[in-house]
Amino acid sequence: MEDKEFAKELPKKHEDISRWYTDVIAKAELADYWLVRGFMVIRPYGYALWENMTALLDARFKATGHKNAYFPLLLPESLLVKEAQHVEGFAPQVAWVTEAGTEPLEERLAVRPTSEAIFGTMYSKWIQSWRDLPMLINQWCSVVRWEKRTLPFLRTTEFLWQEGHTAHRTEEDGVEETMRMLEVYRDFVEAELAIPVVKGRKSESEKFPGAVDTYTIEALLPDGRALQSATSHHLGQNFARAFNITFQDLDGERRHVWTTSWGLSTRTVGAVIMVHGDDSGLILPPRIAPVQVIIVPIHGKDADEPALREAVDKVSSALSPRFRVEADWSDKRPGWKFNEWEMRGVPIRLELGPRDLRARQVTLVRRDDLERKKQPVPWDGLEARVAAELEAVQGALFQRALQFRAANTRRVTSGEEFRRVMEGPRGFILADWCGDAACEARIKDETGATVRCLPLDTEAAKGPCTWCGRPGQAQALFARAY
Amino acid sequence: MEDKEFAKELPKKHEDISRWYTDVIAKAELADYWLVRGFMVIRPYGYALWENMTALLDARFKATGHKNAYFPLLLPESLLVKEAQHVEGFAPQVAWVTEAGTEPLEERLAVRPTSEAIFGTMYSKWIQSWRDLPMLINQWCSVVRWEKRTLPFLRTTEFLWQEGHTAHRTEEDGVEETMRMLEVYRDFVEAELAIPVVKGRKSESEKFPGAVDTYTIEALLPDGRALQSATSHHLGQNFARAFNITFQDLDGERRHVWTTSWGLSTRTVGAVIMVHGDDSGLILPPRIAPVQVIIVPIHGKDADEPALREAVDKVSSALSPRFRVEADWSDKRPGWKFNEWEMRGVPIRLELGPRDLRARQVTLVRRDDLERKKQPVPWDGLEARVAAELEAVQGALFQRALQFRAANTRRVTSGEEFRRVMEGPRGFILADWCGDAACEARIKDETGATVRCLPLDTEAAKGPCTWCGRPGQAQALFARAY
Repeated sequence: MEDKEFAKELPKKHEDISRWYTDVIAKAELADYWLVRGFMVIRPYGYALWENMTALLDARFKATGHKNAYFPLLLPESLLVKEAQHVEGFAPQVAWVTEAGTEPLEERLAVRPTSEAIFGTMYSKWIQSWRDLPMLINQWCSVVRWEKRTLPFLRTTEFLWQEGHTAHRTEEDGVEETMRMLEVYRDFVEAELAIPVVKGRKSESEKFPGAVDTYTIEALLPDGRALQSATSHHLGQNFARAFNITFQDLDGERRHVWTTSWGLSTRTVGAVIMVHGDDSGLILPPRIAPVQVIIVPIHGKDADEPALREAVDKVSSALSPRFRVEADWSDKRPGWKFNEWEMRGVPIRLELGPRDLRARQVTLVRRDDLERKKQPVPWDGLEARVAAELEAVQGALFQRALQFRAANTRRVTSGEEFRRVMEGPRGFILADWCGDAACEARIKDETGATVRCLPLDTEAAKGPCTWCGRPGQAQALFARAY
Repeated sequence: MEDKEFAKELPKKHEDISRWYTDVIAKAELADYWLVRGFMVIRPYGYALWENMTALLDARFKATGHKNAYFPLLLPESLLVKEAQHVEGFAPQVAWVTEAGTEPLEERLAVRPTSEAIFGTMYSKWIQSWRDLPMLINQWCSVVRWEKRTLPFLRTTEFLWQEGHTAHRTEEDGVEETMRMLEVYRDFVEAELAIPVVKGRKSESEKFPGAVDTYTIEALLPDGRALQSATSHHLGQNFARAFNITFQDLDGERRHVWTTSWGLSTRTVGAVIMVHGDDSGLILPPRIAPVQVIIVPIHGKDADEPALREAVDKVSSALSPRFRVEADWSDKRPGWKFNEWEMRGVPIRLELGPRDLRARQVTLVRRDDLERKKQPVPWDGLEARVAAELEAVQGALFQRALQFRAANTRRVTSGEEFRRVMEGPRGFILADWCGDAACEARIKDETGATVRCLPLDTEAAKGPCTWCGRPGQAQALFARAY
């Protein structure tokens, strides 16, 4: 009975997803709160998850020709204000360093909320000729944006992310890069995080401050709200002009470069938790799980301890070259261990008890399907079977999320229908829209929904604006956003 | 003639090492200056070097049972002041956030100069029982310490580092961890960076603020000055008391934990540049070089471009699974390319010209010995030969540095001799010392030398203090420090 307590304290996910979310983060030891409101501590288990994610994403950046670098944490206020829309967008969220050592500073320094101004300053120095282009640099770092309402991972004052900043010779090259990185993000989030996303362009009001166009991938979370999971910005020549980034072109003329920037942050960890978890806790996609296989030894009444240890070592060594495997030798009871590792979302559990030992097998349990009958698997061929099961878990999680999204994406053709969906099940709404910011603001006021994006793969509007009746400009994807 | 210009502009290392150092950093594109004094931008080539270093060090941390995590950038002033010596040591260097968004903060927040207070706060929450011990957590991050005199990598206001923070059940466990991590650093710096170091204990005046004992590894740079390359602190129960980190022990009693902390930073990149470089630029140890092998194709008069491309691809594919290889197809002349890649310190250059093509060979040049006759190496067996040459470069760099240190470490037995060495060649001085802080201060005033450490592997003092004549307490290692 006691074995169940650990998981029992967790609220049902569908009954109280907010408390479920913060409780899972605490119980799985992913993160903790910090003394300063809005900040969090990413604990080792949460950080291992992030490390696995960053390794897979970083490999994609390198494969597309990008290099990592490190740019400073602090920038003078006079730099931030150079691009007018940029400073207007970020100023209300900036943390300011005004004193250092025992002295007040002459000019206050912003803790970077994003680094366009910093990269822009250096690019104007480094870029001289078309030979220096494209310049393709990424950095992994933390940024600070003072937030009023925060939630671990999904919205924190400080967060970890990567920010790519590139400069190109032509507009075409800049647009191509913007779309290439959007596709890298889609591929990463769908293939590794097992979360389906919609690729689209942001409306004017949701665009990055200073961008010509912002592209996004939007995920649907189980509470029917959307999460912007990564963005890729075509910055045109806005920052090139503000920071005087010019180059001598092939024809000898001096021209402004075209720049892009793109980022993905620890908020995607929040998406992983929300999308895949269940009433027993986390369910982690195998590709990013810190522990892919947990081995739980079970002492029988006629326990032969050395034989058990030998068997666990044998199984563990067979799997560890290829998978992230751990064995739990703590002195807790097996049921308690099951609950703990289920809470932590480990995709596969292998139990090894006296009967398994005699039959030279393990008992395999899949985290994504605890109702399924436990599977005996012979030691011979275990590695191939584990590989297949991990693939199967990865695929099943994606399919489940895809089905949820399909069931919760609605084509809506009237304002009344729109309201009904938003007051009821929420989710994604596809609707014809006039493209007007004032209309968008009214929709938000009345329903809480915003334009998440203008999806890249849908056709033009079929009829008038669902909301205001004026001519439809595009089919837009609406949802309440995180 | 023009080919030599690039390198010619570099001052001779032995004539003006300060300008040589900053020029190499600029020409090899390792780093650049930022608008805020004391900050730097780590450029892609410099960052790739750091990435290789961190991967090798991180693997050692994980092999010794440590896990990574991420702790917040900002801490309230009230936390920093909890450990009296700690705040006294760091307060003069702290950057303060006093405003966020449009509001002044109620309490100012320090940009972390180090994270003992942050880890301490969380450890007091996470540690309840002896079962939670040891707690072994590391983080990779940047820290800020306002510095008056700065130099790229060697002393910057913001720097990248890792900081390990551990908590233990007993004093013995804490001391053992302190020494284990010191040895990890020694092994890393000697094996990967090819820099010999002296392990030792810091004197009272050079100790980390709040530590019981600070241990260090000290390297000798070519200008005869010492560089503290990493430190490992036994913090006793000082931080446990200040942050109330207690646990229920095996016997049921509540006790304070014993903590340690240890760090290594981007200043070690400065050591790599200084120790190994020569008049042609950087020389990078193969284990950490971003590019280990550079292939330079040479078009002859009767150039058969497709055959040359094919040969370069063949050589490159043969080597790239095992080594970090690049081919330089830029339209610069070969001599210019040689100079550029020598400046960047690439350990091995393979030239491929018409004669090499005919003979199915490459011409191999080792960066650590440009005077040596160029070596023809047949394509068959190239991989094994390159592996052996890279090992040889790694070994040769370490031996050269070891010889330099041996030639510049002097056992000194009188104050006069001490002065003569410090006014002349400098380097390491081993001398009997009384252990008194006032005597240490006088030595510094009169010679510029400080106690770098009390080396772990030398015997007790043999005679009276070399400086003041009082009873000798220990043999100390003196040098002028960076």
